[in-house]
Amino acid sequence: MKNVPLAIDVVEAKASRIDSVDFENLIFGNVFADHMMECDFKDGQWQNPVIKPYGPIQLDPSAKVFHYGQAIFEGMKAFKDDEDQVWLFRPEANIERFNISSKRLAIPEFPKEVFLEGLKTLLNLDRDWIKKGFGNSLYIRPFVIATEPGVSASPSKTYKFMIICSPAKAYYSGEVRVFFADKYSRAADGGVGYAKAAGNYGAQFYPTNLAKEQGYQQIVWTDASTHEYLEEAGTMNIFFRVGEKLLTAPTSDRILDGVTRRSVIALAEEYNIPVEVRRVKVAEIVEAAKKGELKEIFGAGTAATINPVKGFGNKGEKFELQDQEDSYATFFKKKLMEIQYNKAEDKFGWRMLVEKD
Amino acid sequence: MKNVPLAIDVVEAKASRIDSVDFENLIFGNVFADHMMECDFKDGQWQNPVIKPYGPIQLDPSAKVFHYGQAIFEGMKAFKDDEDQVWLFRPEANIERFNISSKRLAIPEFPKEVFLEGLKTLLNLDRDWIKKGFGNSLYIRPFVIATEPGVSASPSKTYKFMIICSPAKAYYSGEVRVFFADKYSRAADGGVGYAKAAGNYGAQFYPTNLAKEQGYQQIVWTDASTHEYLEEAGTMNIFFRVGEKLLTAPTSDRILDGVTRRSVIALAEEYNIPVEVRRVKVAEIVEAAKKGELKEIFGAGTAATINPVKGFGNKGEKFELQDQEDSYATFFKKKLMEIQYNKAEDKFGWRMLVEKD
Repeated sequence: MKNVPLAIDVVEAKASRIDSVDFENLIFGNVFADHMMECDFKDGQWQNPVIKPYGPIQLDPSAKVFHYGQAIFEGMKAFKDDEDQVWLFRPEANIERFNISSKRLAIPEFPKEVFLEGLKTLLNLDRDWIKKGFGNSLYIRPFVIATEPGVSASPSKTYKFMIICSPAKAYYSGEVRVFFADKYSRAADGGVGYAKAAGNYGAQFYPTNLAKEQGYQQIVWTDASTHEYLEEAGTMNIFFRVGEKLLTAPTSDRILDGVTRRSVIALAEEYNIPVEVRRVKVAEIVEAAKKGELKEIFGAGTAATINPVKGFGNKGEKFELQDQEDSYATFFKKKLMEIQYNKAEDKFGWRMLVEKD
Repeated sequence: MKNVPLAIDVVEAKASRIDSVDFENLIFGNVFADHMMECDFKDGQWQNPVIKPYGPIQLDPSAKVFHYGQAIFEGMKAFKDDEDQVWLFRPEANIERFNISSKRLAIPEFPKEVFLEGLKTLLNLDRDWIKKGFGNSLYIRPFVIATEPGVSASPSKTYKFMIICSPAKAYYSGEVRVFFADKYSRAADGGVGYAKAAGNYGAQFYPTNLAKEQGYQQIVWTDASTHEYLEEAGTMNIFFRVGEKLLTAPTSDRILDGVTRRSVIALAEEYNIPVEVRRVKVAEIVEAAKKGELKEIFGAGTAATINPVKGFGNKGEKFELQDQEDSYATFFKKKLMEIQYNKAEDKFGWRMLVEKD
């Protein structure tokens, strides 16, 4: 056990599991790097964090996370450049949102410096798990769960913060078609849709299963009151290209303020791609599709980066999109990856180097 | 280890913890009986259930319940009569709702017979934890959590069903005042509000904390779109008495179909108390309060049974309610308890005897 700055205890794994991993055939989120970070909240404060070998945790069956879903998470990625340097992409944006989510779920905020210092220490220990080359990354999953035992519906007095990491290639494999929600909903006004609250995700599984039976991999959620406006896809924000114009919904208390979404908007402005952040009507997208003006739909999120959508369904109708030679999705993905993998100038200051210990 | 019908394995605790429990000073949901029931779902089916000593469970940190809130629960109670007989109250209604909740969260339904047989076996083992006397009960918490490791947002392939039990007196101690939601929301149309989904509860903690700062213990949730209609209180359904008339909102995909709620409506009909199940406007309740026609508000739920509300807040205004000599809340609570504790005829067939093994 050695101590690093900020009193992070580090217990190194006796042996690495890395040789047992087939990095060419990774299933997203299925394999975890050798170490994890853990930090408990009790007696009104976050305790000393520890980095230790990845392994199971033990909880009382009455722990509040099991009963009341008091839990939030983030998704981040680390990339390796050709010189074996490791980079994070806009980590401070994720940490900020982590604490925005925590606040909404009545979870104590986690100190930014401990988060970042702990994450860097963790990444240095598991550097070998980050592979070079476009598309390869280490997916980082920070999360907090309510650990206090007791089945009364009130905020927990104890919590566990963790960071676990999973080597990743693509999030969705294969073609993605989406269904525009016309019955089920993801979030209410005044609810927790803008937070990465655990319960937001489990609630989507059943409607998504129904959509899958109809040949759609994802749902584009619409406003719960009227189903007239397109909002987000649950694991990604969503963009529509009509003619040369890019459309996406404004963030709200129902829609996650995605870091990749924000980055796409910034890149669009930088490269003079007309972008309108405004409410997007289902009717206008359907009409654009019928007129041949709907050129592209794509999702933007940390796990998926930029995910082109091949077609969509709305009520009874199915629409297919043509491949575009001047695809915006391809353009943004390339621009983002060039920054993420240290292949291009970082005008926006989005990259953060993980200095070697 | 002995086998009971339906192949439920029973591992008895070596020693009981019961002597360490102060049954006169119980905090709700804080102490658990000696045994718990556990049943795992894998390879596409529920495995052999086991009843064993209450104790911690071990999960991978990437288990889906932690990240995606794929979890649901129920609340039930067992009562003991003067002849030491143990009774359940409408258990089939809870089991039915357990599976309605499961379906919405894409969790495989649990077989009703195994649930009931397992529960009865569990209650027989922990009979001594059920104390006689009005107000004493054993609170029963069945729940399911998604246990599959992996941080991709998709339904788990493995689950753990559990029943844990906690000796209980009252749920809320002290006077309860409620705040009518005017900004935050509990559920969306097309969402999971009608299910006992874990995430529905954690999402209420922060707004409830804000209400507590204003002197309210609970929030009465209103419709997310307009905040004009009163819906439910998150852990209880809510009833309003205007003059002699009882009002409560109809169930919907936003409102839990409470067993106690249903029982109150049935009792009202039985005893010729006029009851209207219809949308209840905030404005009409405020107006009735101002005219002195609002006689009572009370909550109805398994944990709380019937919970009288002493006052409410709406926007800037605070209202206090006068104690009623002919209180409906007191009447329904008495009628319910007489049935629950085998002190009155069970016209509706709500009681179920837990036969001794």
